[in-house]
Amino acid sequence: MPALPTLPALPPPALPGQPLRAVDTPALVLDLDAFARNLERMQSACDRAGVQLRPHAKAHKCPDIALAQVARGAVGICCQKVSEALPFVAAGIRDLHVSNQVVGGSKLALLAALARHAHLSVCVDDARQVEALAEACATAGSRLSVLVEIDIGQGRCGVADGTAALRLVEAIDRHPQLVFRGLQAYHGGIQHLRGHGERREAAARAAQRTAAALRILQGAGVRSEVVTGGGTGSVEFDLASGVYTELQPGSYVFMDADYGRNQGAAAADGLRFEHSLFLAATVMSVAAASRAEPRVIVDAGLKSVATDSGLPLPWRDGARDGRLDYLAANDEHGIVAPAAGAGAGADALPALGEQMLLVPGHCDPTLNLYETLVTVRGGTVAGLWPVAARGHSR
Amino acid sequence: MPALPTLPALPPPALPGQPLRAVDTPALVLDLDAFARNLERMQSACDRAGVQLRPHAKAHKCPDIALAQVARGAVGICCQKVSEALPFVAAGIRDLHVSNQVVGGSKLALLAALARHAHLSVCVDDARQVEALAEACATAGSRLSVLVEIDIGQGRCGVADGTAALRLVEAIDRHPQLVFRGLQAYHGGIQHLRGHGERREAAARAAQRTAAALRILQGAGVRSEVVTGGGTGSVEFDLASGVYTELQPGSYVFMDADYGRNQGAAAADGLRFEHSLFLAATVMSVAAASRAEPRVIVDAGLKSVATDSGLPLPWRDGARDGRLDYLAANDEHGIVAPAAGAGAGADALPALGEQMLLVPGHCDPTLNLYETLVTVRGGTVAGLWPVAARGHSR
Repeated sequence: MPALPTLPALPPPALPGQPLRAVDTPALVLDLDAFARNLERMQSACDRAGVQLRPHAKAHKCPDIALAQVARGAVGICCQKVSEALPFVAAGIRDLHVSNQVVGGSKLALLAALARHAHLSVCVDDARQVEALAEACATAGSRLSVLVEIDIGQGRCGVADGTAALRLVEAIDRHPQLVFRGLQAYHGGIQHLRGHGERREAAARAAQRTAAALRILQGAGVRSEVVTGGGTGSVEFDLASGVYTELQPGSYVFMDADYGRNQGAAAADGLRFEHSLFLAATVMSVAAASRAEPRVIVDAGLKSVATDSGLPLPWRDGARDGRLDYLAANDEHGIVAPAAGAGAGADALPALGEQMLLVPGHCDPTLNLYETLVTVRGGTVAGLWPVAARGHSR
Repeated sequence: MPALPTLPALPPPALPGQPLRAVDTPALVLDLDAFARNLERMQSACDRAGVQLRPHAKAHKCPDIALAQVARGAVGICCQKVSEALPFVAAGIRDLHVSNQVVGGSKLALLAALARHAHLSVCVDDARQVEALAEACATAGSRLSVLVEIDIGQGRCGVADGTAALRLVEAIDRHPQLVFRGLQAYHGGIQHLRGHGERREAAARAAQRTAAALRILQGAGVRSEVVTGGGTGSVEFDLASGVYTELQPGSYVFMDADYGRNQGAAAADGLRFEHSLFLAATVMSVAAASRAEPRVIVDAGLKSVATDSGLPLPWRDGARDGRLDYLAANDEHGIVAPAAGAGAGADALPALGEQMLLVPGHCDPTLNLYETLVTVRGGTVAGLWPVAARGHSR
């Protein structure tokens, strides 16, 4: 019997130098020019305001992107989970803030071990978390910076006010291996308010709560070296608030369809970001293209794009393709139809085998589906960037 | 300067022999006893009806599970994408049906190469797909079985009727490297109709369309050796329809909260499946537990559980924990509150550090978030099963 041929390996989604249309789909594509402009705009805005930028790596999970952010002036990065920080430390990022509470022995041991390799800070909102951090650091022989998280209106994590924060500062100060650095004050809900005015007012209320907590700490002689928070949707208000020393936006790198629905300021303020992230999909069935409800089927569904903040938007020649809608996502199928009310008919539908680009509804969980980001410049594949922290939710 | 210590590695989520409560969260946990009962029930029902079982591996993406299904009598498995098939072929599965259209040179080359290692079949709904399959097989020196997909009401993939199917059979027959095997007739929408009666009626209409297409093929002297389709929600009707030779359910292995909302038959028919898949999460903040809207925060959000078909349901002592609701998923946070209208107050909330089990809303995209499935028997970790096809959407 002849020997069996070697089992084929899964080829990469693309090779440098290939045209974008040759990328094996579904794939996540990063437009390097738009990406670079987004990075510059955010860094410049922070520099002008004298506020430090610590971008949130939960949006991209990609060490190549973190290194590009730090190279442009970011002081470090945020991670949301301890395991998420690991590939960034391995890639050489030396200042990381875990913008979250860390509970559980395995996570605490990893955090304390990582603190021997990089400057790491973490949030607390309970005295028992402080004791557990101190114990893990004592065991590992490491030191951690600690930020007290205050709830400025989201009702998620964070102590209620400055008085409660003060009690945690006192708990932190009892442990020489823990260093109180300041406050985290983040309100995720503000980021996605659509109106520019309502975002401004909500951000102002949140900043007032942060300022009130800071006054209580100052009154007790406690200095908060860092006040960190903010996101892509509120960054213009956060920069002007006078409260934050550091901002942690993430999505500005990519812009997703959800953030795209936010209403910008009337005046151009230099803080507009561009869509740089695209889902490349291929039409794999046109059997229903000429029926009463014309549609084509693309090879990207729920497993290729997050739909929690809306379905992806068809994109063509640098703008929303208004002739088409992505109607529904099944596990591995996407249904694309002529846009309702756009006067488009079946002739607007792409052909069998044609590649479509789509703007994901929500970038963070979409990145979390992929091992690889295909970078593109001028319609040609530039390289492959590992999404090294994909799935690192522990 | 002393040498830096070695960078720690990410530890596995659990070790065999540990108690379930020691699993590092978020983690996906499989109850092996419930899992085995689900496999037995489905295989027995198919055996009784004389219908072959070809479970859909898109639900689990896990070779250990596929091997268990085949060991109990499944004729092989379904995959939804070519790349998804690869780890199953590598694990020794020898009969795989790609229940989808395959378009694109890279995918076709991989499919044709895999066909040298295992029996592979694939769907078509366009003559151009037939020509491309023939060319890929000619290049690879392999043979493929081909099924014509017919649309039985979903309006997704599949030709409209038997006459259109017949034209594709003729196209397939022109290529010696392609073998026509029969029809795929699947209607995903039926699976999630809640009422038992409406599911029965919709399945009956779909079976009638399949039977009509088969009559046209038979009239032209074409034998369909295989008629494949069906899913967990319609399997009892599909088994009794007399139309299908083979069924492709996937979710029965796990049962998710969405399928759990389907209304069963009035009479016990042996086709009830149990929840065997759980999301283990840990309470990491209780700062808001004693406020006006009491809640605790768990460490599992959008990146740890798919929410497209509803939020996960709290589970305790073998049943839905009616005192608690999982209210909302942020990227890495889950908000848990006393269940609305259940008369439960803040005292029902779990404590800081406590582990919660949750039934995922939709199993398929949830499995696609994890590298590893933690298997548990009687509250003790039994092992770790790789979710080897995770992310294999190409």
